Amino acid sequence: MKCALTFVCITAMFLPVKLTAETGHDAWLRYAYINDTVAREGYADLPAVVVGFANSPVIVSAREELIRGFRGMLGRTLRAASTLPNEPAIVLATISDLRAALPGAPRIAPLAEDGFQIIRTGRELIVTGTNDRGVLYGVFALLRAIELQWSESELNIREEPYAPVRWVNEWDNLDGTIERGYGGRSIFFENDNVRADLGPVRDYARLLASLGINGCAINNVNANPRVVSAEFLPQLARIAEIFRAWGIRLAVSVDFSSPQRIGGLDTFDPLDSRVATWWKTKVGEIYRAVPDLGGFVVKADSEGRLGPSAYKRTHADAANVIARALAPHHGLIFYRGFVYDHHMDWRNLKNDRARAAYDNFIKLDGTFADNVLVQIKHGPIDFQVREPASPLFGALEKTNEAIELQITQEYFGQARQVVFLIPMWKEALDFDLHAHGAGTPVKALAAGKTFNRPSGGFVGVSNVGLDANWFGNDMSQANLYGFGRLAWNPNLTSEQIIDEWTRLTFSQGPEVVKTINSVQLSSWRTFENYTGPLGLQTLTDIVGNHFGVAVEASERNGWGQWHRADEQGVGMDRTVATGTGYIGQYRPPVAKMYESLTECPDELLLFMHHVPYTHVLHSGKTVIQQIYDAHYDGAAAAARYVKEWESLNGRVDEPRYLAILAHLQYQAGAAELWRDAVNTWFLRTSGIPDRTGRAGSFPGRHEAEAMKLTGYSVVDVKPWEAASGSKAASCTAPPCAARMRYDGTAGWYDLYVRYFDQNDGVSRYRLLVGSQLIDEWTAADRFPTRRIDSSSSTRRIAAGVALRPGDEIRIEGVPDGPETAALDYIEIHQATK
Amino acid sequence: MKCALTFVCITAMFLPVKLTAETGHDAWLRYAYINDTVAREGYADLPAVVVGFANSPVIVSAREELIRGFRGMLGRTLRAASTLPNEPAIVLATISDLRAALPGAPRIAPLAEDGFQIIRTGRELIVTGTNDRGVLYGVFALLRAIELQWSESELNIREEPYAPVRWVNEWDNLDGTIERGYGGRSIFFENDNVRADLGPVRDYARLLASLGINGCAINNVNANPRVVSAEFLPQLARIAEIFRAWGIRLAVSVDFSSPQRIGGLDTFDPLDSRVATWWKTKVGEIYRAVPDLGGFVVKADSEGRLGPSAYKRTHADAANVIARALAPHHGLIFYRGFVYDHHMDWRNLKNDRARAAYDNFIKLDGTFADNVLVQIKHGPIDFQVREPASPLFGALEKTNEAIELQITQEYFGQARQVVFLIPMWKEALDFDLHAHGAGTPVKALAAGKTFNRPSGGFVGVSNVGLDANWFGNDMSQANLYGFGRLAWNPNLTSEQIIDEWTRLTFSQGPEVVKTINSVQLSSWRTFENYTGPLGLQTLTDIVGNHFGVAVEASERNGWGQWHRADEQGVGMDRTVATGTGYIGQYRPPVAKMYESLTECPDELLLFMHHVPYTHVLHSGKTVIQQIYDAHYDGAAAAARYVKEWESLNGRVDEPRYLAILAHLQYQAGAAELWRDAVNTWFLRTSGIPDRTGRAGSFPGRHEAEAMKLTGYSVVDVKPWEAASGSKAASCTAPPCAARMRYDGTAGWYDLYVRYFDQNDGVSRYRLLVGSQLIDEWTAADRFPTRRIDSSSSTRRIAAGVALRPGDEIRIEGVPDGPETAALDYIEIHQATK
Repeated sequence: MKCALTFVCITAMFLPVKLTAETGHDAWLRYAYINDTVAREGYADLPAVVVGFANSPVIVSAREELIRGFRGMLGRTLRAASTLPNEPAIVLATISDLRAALPGAPRIAPLAEDGFQIIRTGRELIVTGTNDRGVLYGVFALLRAIELQWSESELNIREEPYAPVRWVNEWDNLDGTIERGYGGRSIFFENDNVRADLGPVRDYARLLASLGINGCAINNVNANPRVVSAEFLPQLARIAEIFRAWGIRLAVSVDFSSPQRIGGLDTFDPLDSRVATWWKTKVGEIYRAVPDLGGFVVKADSEGRLGPSAYKRTHADAANVIARALAPHHGLIFYRGFVYDHHMDWRNLKNDRARAAYDNFIKLDGTFADNVLVQIKHGPIDFQVREPASPLFGALEKTNEAIELQITQEYFGQARQVVFLIPMWKEALDFDLHAHGAGTPVKALAAGKTFNRPSGGFVGVSNVGLDANWFGNDMSQANLYGFGRLAWNPNLTSEQIIDEWTRLTFSQGPEVVKTINSVQLSSWRTFENYTGPLGLQTLTDIVGNHFGVAVEASERNGWGQWHRADEQGVGMDRTVATGTGYIGQYRPPVAKMYESLTECPDELLLFMHHVPYTHVLHSGKTVIQQIYDAHYDGAAAAARYVKEWESLNGRVDEPRYLAILAHLQYQAGAAELWRDAVNTWFLRTSGIPDRTGRAGSFPGRHEAEAMKLTGYSVVDVKPWEAASGSKAASCTAPPCAARMRYDGTAGWYDLYVRYFDQNDGVSRYRLLVGSQLIDEWTAADRFPTRRIDSSSSTRRIAAGVALRPGDEIRIEGVPDGPETAALDYIEIHQATK
Repeated sequence: MKCALTFVCITAMFLPVKLTAETGHDAWLRYAYINDTVAREGYADLPAVVVGFANSPVIVSAREELIRGFRGMLGRTLRAASTLPNEPAIVLATISDLRAALPGAPRIAPLAEDGFQIIRTGRELIVTGTNDRGVLYGVFALLRAIELQWSESELNIREEPYAPVRWVNEWDNLDGTIERGYGGRSIFFENDNVRADLGPVRDYARLLASLGINGCAINNVNANPRVVSAEFLPQLARIAEIFRAWGIRLAVSVDFSSPQRIGGLDTFDPLDSRVATWWKTKVGEIYRAVPDLGGFVVKADSEGRLGPSAYKRTHADAANVIARALAPHHGLIFYRGFVYDHHMDWRNLKNDRARAAYDNFIKLDGTFADNVLVQIKHGPIDFQVREPASPLFGALEKTNEAIELQITQEYFGQARQVVFLIPMWKEALDFDLHAHGAGTPVKALAAGKTFNRPSGGFVGVSNVGLDANWFGNDMSQANLYGFGRLAWNPNLTSEQIIDEWTRLTFSQGPEVVKTINSVQLSSWRTFENYTGPLGLQTLTDIVGNHFGVAVEASERNGWGQWHRADEQGVGMDRTVATGTGYIGQYRPPVAKMYESLTECPDELLLFMHHVPYTHVLHSGKTVIQQIYDAHYDGAAAAARYVKEWESLNGRVDEPRYLAILAHLQYQAGAAELWRDAVNTWFLRTSGIPDRTGRAGSFPGRHEAEAMKLTGYSVVDVKPWEAASGSKAASCTAPPCAARMRYDGTAGWYDLYVRYFDQNDGVSRYRLLVGSQLIDEWTAADRFPTRRIDSSSSTRRIAAGVALRPGDEIRIEGVPDGPETAALDYIEIHQATK
C-alpha cells in the first residue's frame, strides 16, 4: 500500500499511526498521536463537526488543517460542514461573520489585524479572528495546544500579533541555487523558471502560516531582473496562489537598475520621470498577475549592487520612486539598510563599517514614503556571533523599520552545527535603546510602536531548500520556529519557545525534552565560546565561505570586519573619545555604558574597545585567559552534546536520531579545531601563555608531518592556524602511508584522526595497528572548499583500540582526483568507555 | 562520510554507535552496544588480544567475528595476533592445536565433530573445538552469551551438536527467481549464472554459521541440469569459497535425468553402466572445482520430475548410482522422500497421499548406500498447518534419514503473516514413534541415534532472498534462527529460542521481549485457528498459490490433500478399521492412539477420522462449533497482535517497527477473511448454526453488491467463499462509485473497506462521507494473484470517522489496467478508541 501525498495516511487497525518513517519534513506539524489516554480523553467532549463559514481558500485551509490535526493527534476524522448542524460544532468564522453564522455567539472584544480568539462555549468551540488569517492562526494555536496536551479549559486562547509585518526572505536564485542556503536546492526555481512541482512550496507555506508569518519574498536580494519580466509573471502567479491559501503574501526582490536592464531605458535614475513611469507600469502589470502581492525587497548600493548613488540620488529617492508605484496596490517596499563601503582603507583607525547603516540613513529620516520600511539587520555588521543591537533602530523616528534576523546559519556552522539563535535574537529585541526615554526595546522600535509608525515588524532570512528537513539539519528548524513565534510575540522566552518546539517536533518524553532543550539553549554560548568570544565576532573566513576558522581573514582588507588583534592587544576602538565614534550613534544612556571600559559588558568588550591582552574583565580574568578558557569550554560543551544526544538512542525516531548524531559528532570535531586554531593564533601573537598550560600543548597528538611518510609530502596550510603545526601531509605519490611507533603504556585508547575532506574528490583512508585493519572510511562529506584548510578539516574517531608499546600505527591514504587524502594528525586518548 | 561495506563503521565520539538505520540485514548478529554499564563492565577483565592459531579461513572468520562482536557490544577493538603475546589473550585453537599453542592448557574431554568448549582460565579465555568449525561455533556462542549479558563465569560453555547433518536447502532457480521464496530474488543466481555480487551470500553464510549450520544446497530441487555443466562449475566454485570460510559445505540439487539431458546419453537408467560412468565422471569434475562439495539433493519421480520409474528401477537404484560416484569424495546424497502420485482417484476412499512416503520407501529399507539420506518432510503431506509426524521416520531402521522442515512460509502466509514455526517443529521432533520401544522421538530417529546410523540430521528449506531482511518480514527470521538452534540442540524449548532471538534481534527492553515473545509463541496456534483447525490442514488454494483461502481446492482432484467435508461430516478416515489404513503405518502404541476416536487428540481428529459435525470433542464442544470458535479466536488474536505491537512504538527502531506493523495489519485483515470464508462455508455445508450466532452474521456489514452502484457491475467471485456474499463490485464502466445511506446512530466509527488488490494494476480508491473525502489509497500491495479472489482480498480501515443518520457513504474506484478497483463490502464498527 502506498499513500497519496495529498492525504494523511490512516491504515492502522486501532490507531492512526503514520506508516512512513520520520523525515523531518512535517517539522513541528507532525500531529503525532497522543499516546496518553487520559490526555486524549480530555478532548473527547469536543464537537465532531467543523463548520467553516465563508468558502475562502484560507478558511478551507483552516478547516482541512483542523481535520488533519484531529486525525493525527486524536484518531478522529471531524466532519466538515458549511452550515451549522443540529449538534455541537467547531465553528470557524471571522468576527464579522460570526454573528450571522452563530446567533447568540459571544461578543468579541476588538482585536488587531490577524488576531484570533478561541472560545469554548457549553456547546460550540468557536475559532474566530479579525480576518480569515486570524481564523487560520486560531486553528494552529488550537492544534498546538492539543498537541501540548493543554486541558480543555485552557483552550480559551486570545492572541493578537505584536507587529503587522511578519515576513520571511528567501535568497533563492532563479537557477535553483540558494545564496547562503544549506538545505538543498530551491523549492521555487530551477533552470531560470518556477519549478513544475510546487508541492514543497505548499508544505512550506503551511509551516509559515502555523507561525503567523504573512509574507514571503522568494528570490535573492541580489536580484535577477527576470523575476518581474512579463514572461515570468504567470509563473509567480502559481506560487502566489499556493501562498494565498495560507494567508501569505508573495513578494519579490527587484533589481534597482531594472528600468535599464529589462525596461529598455537608458537610465534608472529614480528622479527621471521615465523611470517613475516604468516602475508604475511594471508594478501594475505585476499586480494584474498577483493582485495581493506583498511588495518588493530592494538591495541597492550594497556589495556591488547598483543603486541611487549612480546618479547621486539618495536611498529615499530610490525607495520612494518604487513606493509610489506600489502604494495604490497597498504594496510595501523593504529597502535594505545593509549599505556599506567594502573598499574601506583598513589603515585608517577611524574607519568603521559598523557606522555605515546609521550614517547612511539617519539623514534621510522622515523622507521615506509611508509604504517604505527600512530593513535593518539586528546588529551593525553582518550576523556575527555577537553584535550589539544596531543603533539605527533607535535613531529613525519618522521612518518605518523592519528588523532583519538571519534564520539560515550562514555564520553559524551552516547546518552542520547546532546553534539555537533565539537567545541571541532575544537579547537584541529586548535591548533598550532609550530612543524615547527608557522602555524602548528594539522589538518595539522595529514594530513601529515607539514612534507610532504605520508599519513595521520582523523579517527572517530563512533559505529553506528541497532537503526533506528543509535546512539540512533537523535541529535548525528550531530557528525558523523561534523566528515565527517571536515575530508573533517577542515577549515569549527562549525557554518557552524551545520547550514547545521540542515537544511538537520530537516527543513529550521527559528525557527527550530535557536533553534537547538543554543542548539548544546552551548552543549559542557554546558556539560563541569556540568561534569568537568577547565581541571578537565570528573568526571565520569572512571574505570566502563563512565556514571554517580563519582568524585574520577580517584584517588588512576593505571589508571592515576588523578585530585589530596585534601583538599588544585586540579589539576595535569604537569609542567617541579615541575611536571611530560608533558608540556615539547610540542615545546617551546606552552610549555611556558602551563608552566606559568598566561598564561595557565583557561579551561586547572587544567590539567596542581595543585593549591589551592583559586587560582584566569583570570576571577577574584577563582578556587573553578568557579567550583560552572560552575555547576550551566551548569545545568541551560540543563534545558533551554528543554524549547527551546518545542518551536519546531509542527515544527519538532512528532516522533523525542518526542524522543529528552525525551532525553533533562533526560539530564536536569542528569545535576542537576552532579551539586549537584560535588559541594557537592568540598564543603566538600575544606571546602570553595559557595559565593552565593547555593552549599550544596537545597531549597525545602526533603530527602527520612528524610521522614516517611514504608517498605523502608535507605541505604548508593556509591560513597557518587551520592545521596543527601549520602543515599537512598530502598524498602526491601513491601508494601513501603515514607511520608512527606507539611508545605509551598498554591500554584501551580512542584514536582521533584529523584529515581533510575537500569537495573535489572522495579519498579513502585506512587505519591500521600493526597489520590489523582498525578502521577505514571515505572522505565523502560535503564541505564548502576545494582546499586543504579549516573548512575541509574534519575528524574520524576509532574508539576502544588496544595499544601496546612498540605498536606501529599506520594510516594509508588513497587520493581521488584533486583531493589528496591529506592528514593533519593523529591523537591518542585514553578510551572514554 | 560513508562507510565501506566491508567494515564495521565506528565514528561515534564516545560510543561505537551504528550510523546506519536498522534494515534487519544483520538479523540476530547486530552486536548492539550494551548500554547497561554494569553488564558491560562485567567483561572489562577479558583479554585485549585475540590469537587465532592456524591460518585457515574458518579460524580467520572466527577471529574477525570476535573482533566485530566485541567492537559492537563493548566498544573495544581487540588486537589480532597469530602467536601468544606477553599478556592475557583470547585463544582460538582446535583441540589438537591447543597444547602446542598454549602450553599448560587444560585437557579437553572428547567432543563430537563440530563441538566446542570455552574455558576461562585465570589468564586466558580459550575457545577450542574438535575442528575449525567447532572453534567458530564457540566464538558465536561466546558472542551470543555476551549480548545476552551472561556473567563472565557463565562463559564456560561446552556444547556438541545433536546431529552431524545441519543443512539448509534453497529453492533458487538459475534465472534468479525462487520457488516458494518470499524475500526477493536469488542471492545466488541471475540470468542463468551466478551473480557478480556475492556480498549477500557472505552475509548469509555468516548467519548460517552462527547457528552451526554446516551445509547448504543452493538450487531448486526442481533442478536445472545446467548447475553441474562444465561452464557452470567455476561459478559454483566462487560460492563454495565464500561458504568455506564459514564452515559451510556447498551442495546442489541435480536432475536425475542429467545423463540424458546434458550428458549426451540416450538413457538415464540407473542400472545402465554408461549412466554410472557418466555420474562418476561428472562428480569427479565437480569435485575438482569444489573439493569440499557436500553432495547432492535429488527429487525424482515426484510432481512431474523424471525418476527411476521410467526404467522401473527403485529409488534405491537411483540414489545408489549417484551415491557410489560421491562416496570417494565423502559426498552425501539427500534423496527426497516426497514422492507421491498426484493423479489419484479422489472417488476411491481408500486412496491416501499420506501413505505415499512410507509405501514407497519401507520396502527399500536396507538397500540404500551409506552416504544416502532419505530426506523426509516432517509430516506425511506437505507442510500443512497441522500434521502428525511422518511414520516413515520410525519405520526405516537401516536407512539414513534427514528431517525436512520448511522455514519459508509457503503455507503460512508467505512472509505477509507472522507465524513462528518452532512450536510446530518441536511437536514433531519430540513425538515418540515407539520405533524401538518407547523413547524414540523423531529427532533421535532423524539424527540416526536410534538405530546407530552413520549419518542423519536436519534440513531446513530456507529460501532467503535479496530483500534486506532476507525473508520480506523481519519476524520470519525467527524461523531460520529457530531451525538452526534446533538442528544444533533440539532439546531447547520454544520459549528459550524465542527469548534469545528477540533479545538479539530487537532489544533487551522488557516490554519488547515480553510482547514479541508472546506474539511469536502464540502465532502458530492463532494461524491454525483461522486457517485449518482440528487437523483439517491449511484450507488454502493447494493447487495454486498456497496463499488465500479456498476450502474446496483440495477436493475432487488427484492431488490428494482431501479433507472430505460434505453435508454430514468432515475428515479423512485414515483408520485401519474403516479407512485408508494410514494409521497402520505407525507402530502399535501410536497407531492405537490415532485409531481410537476417543484417544486421538482433538487437533488431529479430522486428519485421522471422518466424523459427523456433531461429534463431541474432548473439550465438550461439537466439531462444527469448534470450527466456528477457532476461527473467531484466531481472528481476534491476529487483531490483538496489532494492538500489542503498537505498544512498542518508540521501543523498536522505526524502520522495523513500521514494516512489521504493516504486516500485522494485513494479517489481522486476512484472519478476518479466513474466519468468514471458512465459517460461512461450513455453515452452508453443514446447515448447523453457530451456537453463538456469529457465523454467517456480519453486524455493520454492507455488501458492495447491495449498494447503489454507478459504473460498477456485480460479479461472481470464485471460490464463492472468497467474497462476502460471494459477489464483488467490479468497475467496468468508469467513473465508478458505490453509495450507501448510513442509518445508524450518531457517533464515532471505524470504517473497514474490503477490496481486491490484484497484482496486474494499481487501482485507486477514495472514501467519502457526504462530500467529504475521508481517506484515499491505492491498491499497490503485492499479492500472488491476478484475480478477484481470496488472495487479492484485503482491507483498509478509516478509523475514527463521525457518522450521522442520513449520511451518504461513498467509495469511488478508479481501475488500472486489468485491475478493476473491485469492492467486497464496507463494515461500520464503533470506533475502538
